[in-house]
Amino acid sequence: MKQLLYGVAYYFEYLPYDRINKDIEMMQIAGINVVRIGESTWSTYEPQDGQFNFSKLTYVLDKMQAAGMNVIVGTPTYAFPTWLAKKYPEVLVENDGQRKPYGARQIMDITSPIYRYYAERIIRHMMAITAKYDNVIGYQIDNETKHYGTSSENVQRGFVEYIKNKYNGDLDQFNYDFGLDYWSNRINAWEDFPSVSGTINGSLAGEFSKYQRQLVTDYLIWQARIVNEYKHRNQFITHNFDFEWRGFSYGIQPNVNHFAAAKCLDVVGIDVYHPAQRQLTGAELSFAGDEARSIKMQNYLVMETQAQAFKNWTPYPGQLYQMTFSHVATGANMVEYWHWHSIHNSFETYWKGLLSHDFAPNPVYNEAKKVGQDFQRLSPKLINLKINSRVAFVVDNESLTATSSNWMEFGIGKDKYNDVFRRLYDAFYRHNIRTDILNPSTIDLDHYDLIVVPMLYVSDDAFLWKLNTYVQNGGHVLYTFKNGVTDQHVKVRTCQQPGIISEAIGAHYEMFVDPNGEKLADRSGIFKRVDTTIDQWAELLVSDSAKVLAGYDNHWKDYAAITENRFGQGMTWYLGCWANVEVIERLVEHICHRIDLQSNYGVHFPIIVKSGINEFGHQIDFIFNYSDQVTIVKLPVNGTELRANQPVKENDQIKLSPWDVKIIERQE
Amino acid sequence: MKQLLYGVAYYFEYLPYDRINKDIEMMQIAGINVVRIGESTWSTYEPQDGQFNFSKLTYVLDKMQAAGMNVIVGTPTYAFPTWLAKKYPEVLVENDGQRKPYGARQIMDITSPIYRYYAERIIRHMMAITAKYDNVIGYQIDNETKHYGTSSENVQRGFVEYIKNKYNGDLDQFNYDFGLDYWSNRINAWEDFPSVSGTINGSLAGEFSKYQRQLVTDYLIWQARIVNEYKHRNQFITHNFDFEWRGFSYGIQPNVNHFAAAKCLDVVGIDVYHPAQRQLTGAELSFAGDEARSIKMQNYLVMETQAQAFKNWTPYPGQLYQMTFSHVATGANMVEYWHWHSIHNSFETYWKGLLSHDFAPNPVYNEAKKVGQDFQRLSPKLINLKINSRVAFVVDNESLTATSSNWMEFGIGKDKYNDVFRRLYDAFYRHNIRTDILNPSTIDLDHYDLIVVPMLYVSDDAFLWKLNTYVQNGGHVLYTFKNGVTDQHVKVRTCQQPGIISEAIGAHYEMFVDPNGEKLADRSGIFKRVDTTIDQWAELLVSDSAKVLAGYDNHWKDYAAITENRFGQGMTWYLGCWANVEVIERLVEHICHRIDLQSNYGVHFPIIVKSGINEFGHQIDFIFNYSDQVTIVKLPVNGTELRANQPVKENDQIKLSPWDVKIIERQE
Amino acid sequence: MKQLLYGVAYYFEYLPYDRINKDIEMMQIAGINVVRIGESTWSTYEPQDGQFNFSKLTYVLDKMQAAGMNVIVGTPTYAFPTWLAKKYPEVLVENDGQRKPYGARQIMDITSPIYRYYAERIIRHMMAITAKYDNVIGYQIDNETKHYGTSSENVQRGFVEYIKNKYNGDLDQFNYDFGLDYWSNRINAWEDFPSVSGTINGSLAGEFSKYQRQLVTDYLIWQARIVNEYKHRNQFITHNFDFEWRGFSYGIQPNVNHFAAAKCLDVVGIDVYHPAQRQLTGAELSFAGDEARSIKMQNYLVMETQAQAFKNWTPYPGQLYQMTFSHVATGANMVEYWHWHSIHNSFETYWKGLLSHDFAPNPVYNEAKKVGQDFQRLSPKLINLKINSRVAFVVDNESLTATSSNWMEFGIGKDKYNDVFRRLYDAFYRHNIRTDILNPSTIDLDHYDLIVVPMLYVSDDAFLWKLNTYVQNGGHVLYTFKNGVTDQHVKVRTCQQPGIISEAIGAHYEMFVDPNGEKLADRSGIFKRVDTTIDQWAELLVSDSAKVLAGYDNHWKDYAAITENRFGQGMTWYLGCWANVEVIERLVEHICHRIDLQSNYGVHFPIIVKSGINEFGHQIDFIFNYSDQVTIVKLPVNGTELRANQPVKENDQIKLSPWDVKIIERQE
Repeated sequence: MKQLLYGVAYYFEYLPYDRINKDIEMMQIAGINVVRIGESTWSTYEPQDGQFNFSKLTYVLDKMQAAGMNVIVGTPTYAFPTWLAKKYPEVLVENDGQRKPYGARQIMDITSPIYRYYAERIIRHMMAITAKYDNVIGYQIDNETKHYGTSSENVQRGFVEYIKNKYNGDLDQFNYDFGLDYWSNRINAWEDFPSVSGTINGSLAGEFSKYQRQLVTDYLIWQARIVNEYKHRNQFITHNFDFEWRGFSYGIQPNVNHFAAAKCLDVVGIDVYHPAQRQLTGAELSFAGDEARSIKMQNYLVMETQAQAFKNWTPYPGQLYQMTFSHVATGANMVEYWHWHSIHNSFETYWKGLLSHDFAPNPVYNEAKKVGQDFQRLSPKLINLKINSRVAFVVDNESLTATSSNWMEFGIGKDKYNDVFRRLYDAFYRHNIRTDILNPSTIDLDHYDLIVVPMLYVSDDAFLWKLNTYVQNGGHVLYTFKNGVTDQHVKVRTCQQPGIISEAIGAHYEMFVDPNGEKLADRSGIFKRVDTTIDQWAELLVSDSAKVLAGYDNHWKDYAAITENRFGQGMTWYLGCWANVEVIERLVEHICHRIDLQSNYGVHFPIIVKSGINEFGHQIDFIFNYSDQVTIVKLPVNGTELRANQPVKENDQIKLSPWDVKIIERQE
Repeated sequence: MKQLLYGVAYYFEYLPYDRINKDIEMMQIAGINVVRIGESTWSTYEPQDGQFNFSKLTYVLDKMQAAGMNVIVGTPTYAFPTWLAKKYPEVLVENDGQRKPYGARQIMDITSPIYRYYAERIIRHMMAITAKYDNVIGYQIDNETKHYGTSSENVQRGFVEYIKNKYNGDLDQFNYDFGLDYWSNRINAWEDFPSVSGTINGSLAGEFSKYQRQLVTDYLIWQARIVNEYKHRNQFITHNFDFEWRGFSYGIQPNVNHFAAAKCLDVVGIDVYHPAQRQLTGAELSFAGDEARSIKMQNYLVMETQAQAFKNWTPYPGQLYQMTFSHVATGANMVEYWHWHSIHNSFETYWKGLLSHDFAPNPVYNEAKKVGQDFQRLSPKLINLKINSRVAFVVDNESLTATSSNWMEFGIGKDKYNDVFRRLYDAFYRHNIRTDILNPSTIDLDHYDLIVVPMLYVSDDAFLWKLNTYVQNGGHVLYTFKNGVTDQHVKVRTCQQPGIISEAIGAHYEMFVDPNGEKLADRSGIFKRVDTTIDQWAELLVSDSAKVLAGYDNHWKDYAAITENRFGQGMTWYLGCWANVEVIERLVEHICHRIDLQSNYGVHFPIIVKSGINEFGHQIDFIFNYSDQVTIVKLPVNGTELRANQPVKENDQIKLSPWDVKIIERQE
Repeated sequence: MKQLLYGVAYYFEYLPYDRINKDIEMMQIAGINVVRIGESTWSTYEPQDGQFNFSKLTYVLDKMQAAGMNVIVGTPTYAFPTWLAKKYPEVLVENDGQRKPYGARQIMDITSPIYRYYAERIIRHMMAITAKYDNVIGYQIDNETKHYGTSSENVQRGFVEYIKNKYNGDLDQFNYDFGLDYWSNRINAWEDFPSVSGTINGSLAGEFSKYQRQLVTDYLIWQARIVNEYKHRNQFITHNFDFEWRGFSYGIQPNVNHFAAAKCLDVVGIDVYHPAQRQLTGAELSFAGDEARSIKMQNYLVMETQAQAFKNWTPYPGQLYQMTFSHVATGANMVEYWHWHSIHNSFETYWKGLLSHDFAPNPVYNEAKKVGQDFQRLSPKLINLKINSRVAFVVDNESLTATSSNWMEFGIGKDKYNDVFRRLYDAFYRHNIRTDILNPSTIDLDHYDLIVVPMLYVSDDAFLWKLNTYVQNGGHVLYTFKNGVTDQHVKVRTCQQPGIISEAIGAHYEMFVDPNGEKLADRSGIFKRVDTTIDQWAELLVSDSAKVLAGYDNHWKDYAAITENRFGQGMTWYLGCWANVEVIERLVEHICHRIDLQSNYGVHFPIIVKSGINEFGHQIDFIFNYSDQVTIVKLPVNGTELRANQPVKENDQIKLSPWDVKIIERQE
């Protein structure tokens, strides 16, 4: 990338009248230098089977080229035409025997050969036309691809083949690994394999989810191959990954393995939506960006993020600027708002863009202009920031799936994986410690001082031994409860828990209980004057060599709850219960103190400081005030505040207005 | 009508033994002079296909005739026989591809030609027999007809034809108006038109709802035509309309356009059910009656209302009398309880009638006797009351549907139309200002001093211009938020909001937010000492010429929330946020004060006063005490209190017991 | 039975490796002398259609025999193989037209002839093999059998036949009894009988539920007949009945008539699961045991109860011992934990057994060892305890079903039957009064001093007259509201309520209301200083001869709420409203006082005392402390405390630790 990209999704096809010249003019006034187009209007480009009409697409491309605007073109496959649904209803995805009705996007069976045939044809036509444009800088393949729960007969057949290959046809071993004798679920002939839709076997359900995620990866590889046949060397391929959605981007995406799926991409793109107004904290965009950056250990693109969005997200003055630079501070080279103009019909009418339905300038657009000016001015200093983290999270789709199933309800509770991940992540975030986010197959442990492992419930032996070795050689690991419990087939290990890693942890347990009113009992002074209420889950730890940092207060007072252990040259911490936010923040502070990890600027949320090294080798420090209050920060460095372009000195007291940002370029 | 009708639904067919003579005797003791029969026992009258047996019907008719009792006969089509369901399962309605099972009533596909054939045959047989009875005073066609969500293939085909005709086959215009390029929903050939069941397009869903309401209108026209072939000149046709049901009659009926559907009727009939005991306020029966009266600007019939009903509605002493006369005060010429006797089997066992399961006199029946005596005695003075309202509400099915859809969830919230309507309606009701209720196609604006327009979200340009002209010529309009937003295709206007009516309002907005803790800030003294918390929705109004009555208190303090504007000879008020009850009551009082609308008797809920002019040209004032407290009311008039038949004078202090009613005939 | 049986469910087939020798060794250390095997591994024993392999079964049987361990063998029919589902999908149960997917257990259509064919074949094979083993002491047929909502076409046909036979083809009588004229549901030809799935007729729905329960009884009879062909005289047949499940065993099982279904069994077996930790009260295991014991008026078996179970049930120290002896004190001759080892895959991974997944001894296992030692030592004194109750509950599936249906929602509320039963049951339990639990067709009224009848909403006349006669002859009955309301067809009686029993009650009502804020008004001094808030339901009782114990406080102050009546030689009490726990406890105390029923030991919960007569004719008193507090109990008897084997004397103050148990053998 040569410049920071500042963009919007632009839906010329949705406009009630042609105002492209005015739109481009207003974009350019706002410093917008890239638009994303094309990803959801297949029926406009191919109005009938085999009849193509790309005039609207080329019209936009020509206009943008003439105006010197960059374009990212999306393949239009995530929403398909009415004629295709009418002709081949089987392209509609089936969930547990129910075919979805036509209407929404993302309702196709991504494995359907018919769907693939038609999708490939439209992609090839679009590529042939668009790849020639100089201003097309890249392609987004499909959009927010997931497997949509596809479980039709052909998927079931594919899954049986997959298992059969994996086991070289050894049914006995398969039955054994998956524990299928239980409730007479044993499969004694491949032909008997039932649909997985009704399964109550956690191993089978987990493997099927993994298989479904593989289908997503395969689908993206297939699209990337097609696009690669056409695109030029200087055009990139990206995708728009999204995250677990709880009305906003909450955590790790359950239905896609980002780490595997991103291999076919040149650069990672994500969409991030998050609470705003009083609820803006920056945590969501931060974790999402940390993950995106970690996937390829390179800068990433924000393909979508909110402008006005919903009535409860419409930014307060200052917030649009703040959140846009927060992305840059996290390692983004592009920030694209979704979307330019608000839509006048249909589903997302009140998911508003930069412009309201009246297309007139408005306070949010006016703030975007300030962003655009600074993007342009500061681009050389802020692009391609190198970000170094001494801490990494290990996240895992298989563990997420396994701990989210119904049959786990007597454990930590359904769908709590991301809650646990986020409570840990946010503690580091609020403490101003930068983190990477990787998975067991991509992480280079030795690269980090501290590894945080939330609920790695499912893991083969090898990775757990690797973690032990890493500690022995001087590494540090923070484990939560429900770590190392099962092997890769979601089969609980037959040894004392937490199994293989017990050695490094210096403690073990064989019982776990619901707290049922119990609290933590401080045994180390770390948790004084903190609300130690625990929730949902308490492992009754027995220390073998570990120091007990906290125990329980009543019926289980003989057991440990949080431990610390020296193992070889390194150390481990084990959090055996679902402790509240304060306890976890204290524990994180304690660990950082023990291994000499410093809070950036020594400050804490709501002041967030993020740093990176720019192409000139200078360190850039972004200081964000995520609050309604004016706040003073004492600078620990000399340099230049880039927004005001003013020199600053160590110990200067700089004032941040509500929702303010300062950008310091250090002077070394 | 020559006399006030006082009646019950009478289900001879459901009785465990023949006690008709005793029933008629007890009815007559209670002054009951009409029964409604026949509307749900098709299987008794036609036990097998083509075998008719109306002996139970004629038995009842003969008995009633002999006793001098009036009868309203219902066509029996809303519940159909087992043999029909067995022979032609396709008469069962389909919702989104699921056919309803046999069992309940109102499960037929009202568009099914097979259903129509059988329904027509039974109606013709019944008419041939019953029209000859002198005591049959009228017919109710079907019962509480709705479309039951019918969306089977033939309905989908009908809808496509409807669109095709509407657009003279112009697909491009249709795609444009409905915004179908969005998410590749574009329809490029009529043959491609997908089932609307899965649509995410608000315009399409809205149009389909409108089409479904048209099916209801068509169905009633079809029945009215048949009945008209047989009935005598002095027999009327009515229907039993119901309202949005939230466990009771809450608001405008979403699935029927009462104004259109009533055109084929001679007189409007409604059913009304409402909270009672401590929760009795009279508001539900009042709004329902106001609407019923407005449809044809004439007196209406209460076809059904509660007697003992449910355990939580069983009236306290006095309440049955009070609610029955409340109907009369609202313009009803008939009040029929549902129903005479409680049912011993099946679904509505605990929806009790005037009699309990033991058929014995009971406290509620005993109170009905008092009602009956006064109905009889006062009938000449209370029948055919003329009611004049200076205020009218404009309600609209299309706006209701559009604001109730899922894709509006980021607006005011799903299904809030009637909440907004009712909060406004109730403010006028509690303030003792009488209102009419009409829709854009039926209202004569010039007839009123004040028009209240809650959330007319969908409207063509013409009606909005008409409202502007009305104001310019001296009219007054109170608008709420979300007015004038979209055109008749639910396409958001591309101008500043609230679009066309902005001119008369003297303010506009381009942004709206969730209050997220904001309150109103009083700017006029009207909202002092009132809880100004707002909920869900706040438009950030910018005044062009309007006076700001209230603004916001914090982040959005530069914007207006409630405005008042002089435009031409008239005035408008705009309520830009979902304000609480108190704020709305203050605003309504303020408006009434500004345009010189007086509270009846100058009193406020829980005292409700309703007036009308009787056939002698005398004004009748009904005074209701909707409370557990003894209350004193000072009379502003001379006349006669009709219950006690005692003269009263201006400034008399009359005492109302808990749940009491006084009826004053004014002396002019 | 010759000895107390102490056992576990043992799933050798689920073990990750063969450790049977170690398992048996650990069992024997813990005093375990019986295992239950075989009930859920059909697919292991018949891996393909007609290919049998019982090697795992015989391996376990041989090992157990060699070790002198008893075995109960389960027929494996409640979970069936994949090949059967694949070959004959129609064996999967259909609910309202939806066939359940393969996966879980208990998903078969118990009426399917195909299912029956295959089930019979595997049972016969298993019986031929296992009946020869001396250590097989009995058989469990199927497991927790219910009807699973089976409502497929053949079941509908069977139901029509059943009705036809019952009515000797008299459709008119059937229509009359079931009130089918309502909403045109009348059936005028047997061929027209619609599927009951959509019915809104409470009589029809109630009869269908009864028919479904009959299917369960028939199914068990069918299995018992097969097993009887093979089993030896000294092998018993039992079943594992369960209860209404609300996350634990809450009340009467709605879907099985235990009293009818148990006729084909030699001994009654049950599973009981209940809250533990702070929430352990003993009430669930007590009611379940009282019912199980009453069915055949003999000792019963606990086939399943919890060991570690869920995180929120893991017993505190002492609780496993306490709950195991609670079963014995209630009349159990066997207590079997579910299960031996925790399962490593699939659905019930966190429904833990005596051993954790690591198979190592743990605190719960260690406590089981203490139980086992005392079982062994005290077996001669504690086995076959005779238990005499002077009080009996009458419970009724038909009333449960009728009061649980949707169309009852305006009554006491859906699914409240067991709440009412339990509130009454628990009052006696906490007051240390032993009760039997029977149904109208099994109870011998004259056997008891007091009959408690909660919500016998459905009853034929005969039983009600029998109750009247019982009272007349000196018996005592406590009735709740909603008694005697309908006949056996769920048709409300046409007399004043509560109908036939009014005579004995000396009061009647014709109206009932929601309390809507009303409280009880004490009229007798019994309910002083008690919270008399009432909920959901208040019958407005009019006393004919009864003494009013409580009335209502406000709008309904003329009516009685709780009455007491002398009738002939006996007395009745009628509780006309859904009173809170305290009121019911006071009422129960009052009644006990009136008829001279003494609390055992004169103590109250949390001290529970249960007594029985052992085979030596000595009375055994179990004293349980269901609390966290050390508690002193003053002994009213002389004897020996069997745990410590220490003599005790009248007036001794014995100390119970938290969750403690003392066992006194009285010296007469």
